[in-house]
Amino acid sequence: MSDAANDTKVRFDPERLTFNEAGLVPAIAQDAETSEVLMLAWMNAESIARTLRTGRVTYWSRSRQAFWVKGETSGHVQELVDLRIDCDRDCLLVLLRQTGPACHTGRRSCFYTGVRDGHEQELMTPQD
Amino acid sequence: MSDAANDTKVRFDPERLTFNEAGLVPAIAQDAETSEVLMLAWMNAESIARTLRTGRVTYWSRSRQAFWVKGETSGHVQELVDLRIDCDRDCLLVLLRQTGPACHTGRRSCFYTGVRDGHEQELMTPQD
Repeated sequence: MSDAANDTKVRFDPERLTFNEAGLVPAIAQDAETSEVLMLAWMNAESIARTLRTGRVTYWSRSRQAFWVKGETSGHVQELVDLRIDCDRDCLLVLLRQTGPACHTGRRSCFYTGVRDGHEQELMTPQD
Repeated sequence: MSDAANDTKVRFDPERLTFNEAGLVPAIAQDAETSEVLMLAWMNAESIARTLRTGRVTYWSRSRQAFWVKGETSGHVQELVDLRIDCDRDCLLVLLRQTGPACHTGRRSCFYTGVRDGHEQELMTPQD
């Protein structure tokens, strides 16, 4: 039955997503255990394929124009738990296990600034 | 003290975010209670200002090139709970209370397709 069931399922092809003019889709990184949203970065088809193949979340760095294996230099790696596609096939949700802080500022999440009563307020401090 | 404290805080100005060439930033909609990521849409400075002013989450529709008060026609409104800015000031996290499904397909979240063993798998069905 499992073979038959597989026959009716659509094989996932990263090339068949809807990319922007730069060939990228936004990828939301969410902690698979706490559900905290950690960051948003960008992926092209090959970085999606590498993420699935290696289990190491791999983005495309728009500033460096290069693959960005998250944590490769900092050690703050992201281990893939589950990859989700949205209804328009133009955005990804990446559920993952985060080692150390996700943000380059040393904070757990990049979304550490809140807007409260019209003012910006820092909600997290860098981790040790 | 509260006045003095406010003096040291930065007033939030939607115009001072880093927008893309279309004048937009991606906005991640997250359920404030369950932490489920519901959708990703886009905002310009004025839709951010309207969201803060009205408490109704308001995107910019790229297809219609118009403001999109989420749920205005469907009734599936999003009530703003908290707005967060990321470290690069080019992405928003919108914590909200969602009425009904967030996805136009009737599913709670737009991220209802998972990639499992190289195949796409539907993880949610439309709500009644």
